[in-house]
Amino acid sequence: MASNQMWGGRFAGGPAEIMQAFTPSIDFDRRMAAEDIKGSCAHARMLVQEGIIPAEDADAILKGLAEIATEIAEGRFVFKRELEDIHLNIESRLTELIGPAAGRLHTARSRNDQVATDFRLWVRGACGRSEDALITLMRALHEKAAGNIDTVMPGFTHMQAAQPISFAHHLLAYVEMFSRDVLRFRDAAKRMNECPLGAAALAGTPYAIDREFTARQLGFDKPMRNSLDAVSARDFALEYLAAATIAATHLSKLAGEIVQWCSPGFGFVTLSDAFSTGSSIMPQKRNPDAAELARGKAGRVLGDFTALAAVVKGLVLAYGSDLQEDKERVFDAADTLELTLAVMAGMIRDMTPNKEKMRAAASAGFPTATDLADWLVQTLKKPFREAHHIAGAIVKCAEDRHCDLEHVPLADMQAIEPAITEAVYKVLGLDASLAARMSYGGTAPNRIKEQIAFWRDKLR
Amino acid sequence: MASNQMWGGRFAGGPAEIMQAFTPSIDFDRRMAAEDIKGSCAHARMLVQEGIIPAEDADAILKGLAEIATEIAEGRFVFKRELEDIHLNIESRLTELIGPAAGRLHTARSRNDQVATDFRLWVRGACGRSEDALITLMRALHEKAAGNIDTVMPGFTHMQAAQPISFAHHLLAYVEMFSRDVLRFRDAAKRMNECPLGAAALAGTPYAIDREFTARQLGFDKPMRNSLDAVSARDFALEYLAAATIAATHLSKLAGEIVQWCSPGFGFVTLSDAFSTGSSIMPQKRNPDAAELARGKAGRVLGDFTALAAVVKGLVLAYGSDLQEDKERVFDAADTLELTLAVMAGMIRDMTPNKEKMRAAASAGFPTATDLADWLVQTLKKPFREAHHIAGAIVKCAEDRHCDLEHVPLADMQAIEPAITEAVYKVLGLDASLAARMSYGGTAPNRIKEQIAFWRDKLR
Amino acid sequence: MASNQMWGGRFAGGPAEIMQAFTPSIDFDRRMAAEDIKGSCAHARMLVQEGIIPAEDADAILKGLAEIATEIAEGRFVFKRELEDIHLNIESRLTELIGPAAGRLHTARSRNDQVATDFRLWVRGACGRSEDALITLMRALHEKAAGNIDTVMPGFTHMQAAQPISFAHHLLAYVEMFSRDVLRFRDAAKRMNECPLGAAALAGTPYAIDREFTARQLGFDKPMRNSLDAVSARDFALEYLAAATIAATHLSKLAGEIVQWCSPGFGFVTLSDAFSTGSSIMPQKRNPDAAELARGKAGRVLGDFTALAAVVKGLVLAYGSDLQEDKERVFDAADTLELTLAVMAGMIRDMTPNKEKMRAAASAGFPTATDLADWLVQTLKKPFREAHHIAGAIVKCAEDRHCDLEHVPLADMQAIEPAITEAVYKVLGLDASLAARMSYGGTAPNRIKEQIAFWRDKLR
Amino acid sequence: MASNQMWGGRFAGGPAEIMQAFTPSIDFDRRMAAEDIKGSCAHARMLVQEGIIPAEDADAILKGLAEIATEIAEGRFVFKRELEDIHLNIESRLTELIGPAAGRLHTARSRNDQVATDFRLWVRGACGRSEDALITLMRALHEKAAGNIDTVMPGFTHMQAAQPISFAHHLLAYVEMFSRDVLRFRDAAKRMNECPLGAAALAGTPYAIDREFTARQLGFDKPMRNSLDAVSARDFALEYLAAATIAATHLSKLAGEIVQWCSPGFGFVTLSDAFSTGSSIMPQKRNPDAAELARGKAGRVLGDFTALAAVVKGLVLAYGSDLQEDKERVFDAADTLELTLAVMAGMIRDMTPNKEKMRAAASAGFPTATDLADWLVQTLKKPFREAHHIAGAIVKCAEDRHCDLEHVPLADMQAIEPAITEAVYKVLGLDASLAARMSYGGTAPNRIKEQIAFWRDKLR
Repeated sequence: MASNQMWGGRFAGGPAEIMQAFTPSIDFDRRMAAEDIKGSCAHARMLVQEGIIPAEDADAILKGLAEIATEIAEGRFVFKRELEDIHLNIESRLTELIGPAAGRLHTARSRNDQVATDFRLWVRGACGRSEDALITLMRALHEKAAGNIDTVMPGFTHMQAAQPISFAHHLLAYVEMFSRDVLRFRDAAKRMNECPLGAAALAGTPYAIDREFTARQLGFDKPMRNSLDAVSARDFALEYLAAATIAATHLSKLAGEIVQWCSPGFGFVTLSDAFSTGSSIMPQKRNPDAAELARGKAGRVLGDFTALAAVVKGLVLAYGSDLQEDKERVFDAADTLELTLAVMAGMIRDMTPNKEKMRAAASAGFPTATDLADWLVQTLKKPFREAHHIAGAIVKCAEDRHCDLEHVPLADMQAIEPAITEAVYKVLGLDASLAARMSYGGTAPNRIKEQIAFWRDKLR
Repeated sequence: MASNQMWGGRFAGGPAEIMQAFTPSIDFDRRMAAEDIKGSCAHARMLVQEGIIPAEDADAILKGLAEIATEIAEGRFVFKRELEDIHLNIESRLTELIGPAAGRLHTARSRNDQVATDFRLWVRGACGRSEDALITLMRALHEKAAGNIDTVMPGFTHMQAAQPISFAHHLLAYVEMFSRDVLRFRDAAKRMNECPLGAAALAGTPYAIDREFTARQLGFDKPMRNSLDAVSARDFALEYLAAATIAATHLSKLAGEIVQWCSPGFGFVTLSDAFSTGSSIMPQKRNPDAAELARGKAGRVLGDFTALAAVVKGLVLAYGSDLQEDKERVFDAADTLELTLAVMAGMIRDMTPNKEKMRAAASAGFPTATDLADWLVQTLKKPFREAHHIAGAIVKCAEDRHCDLEHVPLADMQAIEPAITEAVYKVLGLDASLAARMSYGGTAPNRIKEQIAFWRDKLR
Repeated sequence: MASNQMWGGRFAGGPAEIMQAFTPSIDFDRRMAAEDIKGSCAHARMLVQEGIIPAEDADAILKGLAEIATEIAEGRFVFKRELEDIHLNIESRLTELIGPAAGRLHTARSRNDQVATDFRLWVRGACGRSEDALITLMRALHEKAAGNIDTVMPGFTHMQAAQPISFAHHLLAYVEMFSRDVLRFRDAAKRMNECPLGAAALAGTPYAIDREFTARQLGFDKPMRNSLDAVSARDFALEYLAAATIAATHLSKLAGEIVQWCSPGFGFVTLSDAFSTGSSIMPQKRNPDAAELARGKAGRVLGDFTALAAVVKGLVLAYGSDLQEDKERVFDAADTLELTLAVMAGMIRDMTPNKEKMRAAASAGFPTATDLADWLVQTLKKPFREAHHIAGAIVKCAEDRHCDLEHVPLADMQAIEPAITEAVYKVLGLDASLAARMSYGGTAPNRIKEQIAFWRDKLR
Repeated sequence: MASNQMWGGRFAGGPAEIMQAFTPSIDFDRRMAAEDIKGSCAHARMLVQEGIIPAEDADAILKGLAEIATEIAEGRFVFKRELEDIHLNIESRLTELIGPAAGRLHTARSRNDQVATDFRLWVRGACGRSEDALITLMRALHEKAAGNIDTVMPGFTHMQAAQPISFAHHLLAYVEMFSRDVLRFRDAAKRMNECPLGAAALAGTPYAIDREFTARQLGFDKPMRNSLDAVSARDFALEYLAAATIAATHLSKLAGEIVQWCSPGFGFVTLSDAFSTGSSIMPQKRNPDAAELARGKAGRVLGDFTALAAVVKGLVLAYGSDLQEDKERVFDAADTLELTLAVMAGMIRDMTPNKEKMRAAASAGFPTATDLADWLVQTLKKPFREAHHIAGAIVKCAEDRHCDLEHVPLADMQAIEPAITEAVYKVLGLDASLAARMSYGGTAPNRIKEQIAFWRDKLR
């Protein structure tokens, strides 16, 4: 069946040769083969149930589609560019297998509602896969956190060491971020879970079809309420891409931390050989390049969102071929996100913290200055801003003496603030500082243990 | 209080003059003044309840903050660039008003958790405002739809007239889109509704604060579970921007339709004077330029999302000043979205459909060709693809004769397919075609009435 | 050679299996095979010329590379994922073909400068191909314009008919846009035409290499001046993507016009069968879907630019694997742009203007109102703003009478402005209006003929 | 003059109140006041020269415009929202000042070509300002480089120390990047330097105007060749935004380095007090937050480009109000870029390298492993890949012994490769490594001196 035949008897000339390189979508929409067959089976079952097509035709169709599913699974199916897209490729093969009955499958259906249905099924599946991959990564982070409650590292603001924190606390921050990503994908999947099938080209169909039945068969919550919306809406794809972009920024942050932690100025972690690569000219190098690749992926997924948003902007109802851009962007984002999540999970599981280096870094830079200020407020009842000034002056003094805050002589402190007593020294140590941050959500080991337990339950 | 004082006693030199133009955020974050005061009040109440500050200080603080709120509301408050941001502007004024007690407000708090709290409150409010504005627009669309159930217009695919549809059906498609936008903002508002206050700089605080109390006071569902996450997370802002971008693409589509409907080739609607503008050189012009502006806004909001996503990508924990970009992007998107929604609601309410032009356009181009194909399937039991071919040949015949499908002589049809009978003519009319699309979600007037009723209930 | 061997003797464990799906670039960077071989040949010739490797090794290397080029051209080359990228695939095969001498090719070179060189060569080539494709499209537009100097159509602002213009003038506006795109690609190609080869990993090399020689061999203007910049700069790729994005917006505009011109409300042009497609359910439809696809492509290319800009943002020197994202974005943009340009050239060449419909549309909507205002200024010496008001009132009168401006009775005009005379009618006709716009760059046929001649010369 | 008057006598109702918040552009386009007056002066001079308006009117107009320019400069001009934009604000004031003669200024001109001219003038100016600001930054980098030729730091790939390099070399890499940015702005300025004035609304004008004259008066190379293109083209704004985005990524990279260099794991540089800020809770902190802000700005400028590209995509000719989005995006990008460049120049000038820390970091991590491999190739004539393996084994040996490469005993090296001799030690030192990289563009001090001299000349 040549493509000018596909479009009806009206066309005298065929498409230009270059159009064969431009318009067909089969090179990418073949990824929706399973969804297309599933949708067609549901449609055929509905058609026979409603008496629109005879039972023997439906049987032939279902058998033929099953055979095609097998051919595809086994790599025997020949996809043809001249048949444009996955829908016509499958329909054409069905005609070869079962003859004219195949033509009845397209009753009360159009490629417009067919592709909308297939694509929703695919994106719904992608949401599920992202969720699973996120949870796998969260488990890896949780497990690593559970083993590092007492591992002290510097907490950074502005990439300056600010206060000592627990490595577990740091890892759990990512568990929080990824848990919101899970929920975003769940919300998106739920919102998109309405069935376009039966909207036909754009206006509905005169056949007495049962849209509830097909919706149910395909696991959708209900049929979509408006046929124009059903064939033209792509906000579900944009919402998926937005959730993917946000998740990718979280991955990018985590990856950026790892790249930094691996750099010689930090040396906080060692990646396993399995997740490092070497350099062609510098044999001693151990490069976190999987982490770098992961860091870059957020740009790519953002590009996918940007591209589709720019495409749908301003398009009028109902269907325009511009929308054909939707699938490649979503496929690219899904592949990128799922693979990156899996790699990061493996990388985290294999990652070894270098506890001494972390602790040493946490000791540098007067990390307990805030504790000092807090002590001035709590013990000496100084207003916060004044305490802050005093603490700043003592830090300057320590810096001038090249010593830690713990080692500034009492006399020097008293020269700055006479009311300071010996008792101050007990808040100037690293572990004391950590343990003191007992507020809910804080980095005190006891607080972290609560969170570890919370997530153990959730991630079970 | 000069700004080198703000940062403690350690700084010898002051900031460069150009830094005054670069680093302060007061020019835009003053928009969070109400949220900042609200957050400070909640914090002060908690501090006194927990016995961290004395009651008289808390009273002075609350009274001072109330006074500041009034000053701001009445435009008497003097915002100062040298005080950098809204937090320090308010704190400085509080000190002027109540003296050293003001300093106690900053106990167990940092600008990091303070700004995170303020900003969440603001974005949560923006979600609510967007919801309201969306619903106002949905009501305008619904009302216009309710009055136009029998207004026939061409349904387009590829900007070609495909099948006749109801204008009400078309408008309701947008109600569907905007209803999903409402839900996206609701999901976003719900997900972000956790309180960062109490996370302090990044690690929690040694004071025995009650984060449940402040969270409740501020209408948050609960305190955030991880202090690092609390101060650094901006996915809530990205999710807001993503929802805004998607909503803006829907607005852009609707605006694009209106621009097109107003163009002389269509002439489907007339805008009111209130929502049109004229041309400086062409006095007869009546330009839908508010619609054009609305069409363009999706680009702008997309730019806001892109900007913030690119900023947060790759940043390490916890806080970096790069995040200061978050507010201007969100403010710009919120202003843009809310104003555009309001303008579109007014424009839709005032818009007059030109029913005759719509109907005439719906009649052109053999719009019932599909009905003919369906008749061939249903009555003559042709397989769909064959019916499609026959219908195509009859269209070509009508085109050659320069007549509608209704006026192709039976003999000519029978020359193409001998089994065609006189009965075919009853499906070739415009209203018959519309009425036939009775499938759920279809454009048949009875179906539309169901949808009108459904939305009347929902939008009550 | 397994991949842990590639990275030197230091690695105990191999990479994780999933890393094989994540880190290798061979699936896409194989497109740079020709550039890689060309670069290696230049390097080998330089090495032997400078006495760094023996002549017999160089001979073997050059012969081996020629053999590999043939294998690739003939599809006999086996690309291996475990060899990561195009550089190692070729080097490994070279070793098979010529033995240990292959190892000498990597003397004084690193994968960092090698890939930077290959990629610059590729992007430079893409600039050239874009230029050629743009010029082909400009020729098609010019040819169509040359045949339509007297074809009158409405000129639109705000999608409202504003003034009559020539179809040729409209098409030539696109020639102007695409001519600037050509220059942007030329500037980009010129700016990137500096050779990174010899920068080695990042710091230069101790070998006494001749970078001028390799630069010249590869058609570069000169070697890059700074080795760190040489291996890390990707602004040349961003500049290419920016030029591609801008060109794609021009294509998108032209495509958008064609979609609109094909819609029934306009009917200004008919596309050939070769550049239209049909609909599966509506046999009478003739869809401009190649134009719609072309309209969407600007979103895609913009996504490519956005992605790479977000990736390079914030990266420190010198090389990070994030940069591996550069190639897929550029390849995607180049494929998209080149194919779309070719399709649009074919579409334009085949497109038939429907002159009567254009002329009829140009007559509607009082298109000569501006001419009337100008006449009031020039003949009656009215200030422009007053003339504008009078013309507006006469338009309103014509609208009320349902007639053209040419048919408003003189008495009615004089009721609005008594000084108006019979002479006004000669400026109210369509062709008179067109011919009057004789200012340089205007739509008067004589002016267009000058432009047609100008471009005939340029595009020769 | 109320706004319904502006649009001619045809409008019965006025605009909706909300439209006053939506459509006027005066809040931002007032920034083009100087350009608008300049353009009007040129136009008035041309009109009188061609005899289109009387000399006394032109004199009044020029005098009135000069007065308005003064009013604006002195802050006495009252901008009015109800007058929509800068053009009508100025015209209205001109009418107040000189009476009806003001109306003649709009002869042979439309707001469409007027705004296109004003905006081109503004963007051309922005290109010039960016150039100047880039050169100022280049000078600061060059000066810092000139004083640090012998300052050794680690060169990084994958954020791993790879080879020792000179700090000057590193800084000069940025000079290279910014020099290409200068050229991009120059190319953009040159390409946009064509005058739209005289294109009128879209089709040219019947007045015998002299477009060469106005073009010349305004410093344009020539008038634009096509009136439709003249009023609708915005590729010049996109090209400016693309150049700004690329420059901003370079700034972001440099800023990212500084943030990292300031972090305790590096400690490579100290910022001056003038370009640092403190922390409200951690008095000891010295935050590079101007650098962080600068790092984030690339996201913002990218958002501006994305926004405008998405807006112009798909718009049909000639003018649509969507284009009103162009100015805010460009103004935002220009302000952002110019300010960031100035801040970075100040920060670089003030920045103090910590030479000992840099040198210590350069010594760690076996930085001369590549030198060892190169020695094996050059002295022992090993093929590169084999040398690489041997060097890798020796690195592993040094790592096991916790010593530098310089301190691995010869016997241990010979156990790996028996041919190694005492001579190898002379290439294993830091300064030797640096000095050895004598290839053009390499980091050897002599090479750097050449580059310093080259840029001294260029930046004079």
